[in-house]
Amino acid sequence: MSGSALYFDDLRVGQTLVSGTHALDEAQIIAFGRLYDPQPFHTDPEAAKTTFFKGLAASGWQTAGLSMRLMVEGGLPFAGGLIGAGCTIEWPEPTRPGDILQVECEIVELIPSKSRPDRGLVVTRCVTRNQDRKVLQIMTGKMVVPRRVPTSGTAS
Amino acid sequence: MSGSALYFDDLRVGQTLVSGTHALDEAQIIAFGRLYDPQPFHTDPEAAKTTFFKGLAASGWQTAGLSMRLMVEGGLPFAGGLIGAGCTIEWPEPTRPGDILQVECEIVELIPSKSRPDRGLVVTRCVTRNQDRKVLQIMTGKMVVPRRVPTSGTAS
Repeated sequence: MSGSALYFDDLRVGQTLVSGTHALDEAQIIAFGRLYDPQPFHTDPEAAKTTFFKGLAASGWQTAGLSMRLMVEGGLPFAGGLIGAGCTIEWPEPTRPGDILQVECEIVELIPSKSRPDRGLVVTRCVTRNQDRKVLQIMTGKMVVPRRVPTSGTAS
Repeated sequence: MSGSALYFDDLRVGQTLVSGTHALDEAQIIAFGRLYDPQPFHTDPEAAKTTFFKGLAASGWQTAGLSMRLMVEGGLPFAGGLIGAGCTIEWPEPTRPGDILQVECEIVELIPSKSRPDRGLVVTRCVTRNQDRKVLQIMTGKMVVPRRVPTSGTAS
């Protein structure tokens, strides 16, 4: 998927996108951790060694945010932007300093809105991996995408 | 819940926590948007007016991160910290400049690990509201919490 803005009607189940990459370092992990997830394993490389993570790890919310940025820039060129209504998210492995993140998304379901004929819900499954192809995050999300031609409520 | 670190064995279904509050402003929304979700409705108050959101709104990932911080500081005093394995998340309403966020969490399920007797999974349902009690986010998440006394594999 690339090029001009895509409407709900332009999308097909099975379409895929591979994003660009983002290189994450210790400073970025600590800056995010201090503001949004202030726990030693996200903010203090020394103290992190004796925690569950056995070293500095990014907050899962930072992995989610960076994946979002890669999708926006990458991009999923949905008309109106990438507007999430909700998602399920798993973090099978910690994201570490030095990881280079990349996201692969696939459209898995298209749900026309029954109450709002001007839009639909697009379900995408997006997998974030590092440079070793290790899976850091699996997110299945619903996005609101406008329709190209609003349908009429009556057949004629 | 408050005070010293809580282990899996100390927790009961139905226990609740109410966090402190966080006041969000336009500058915080734009700063997060530029780094993690660079779309006009998160970064540009003027351009945001003609979008789906009809004005500046926080990225859902920022609402998630701020809710996390409130839970960490608030706090859910789990031994070893708040370590998420995954979650489902919904954003019923946009988070706006001027919103004052607060999180209420309830323990809804306790799942001892079968393969790792030193830990369990705690399922919490956390609802983030603003000062008008409007629901901005509903997150049901699984967290890894250590057990107080590792059980032996054999009965004696």
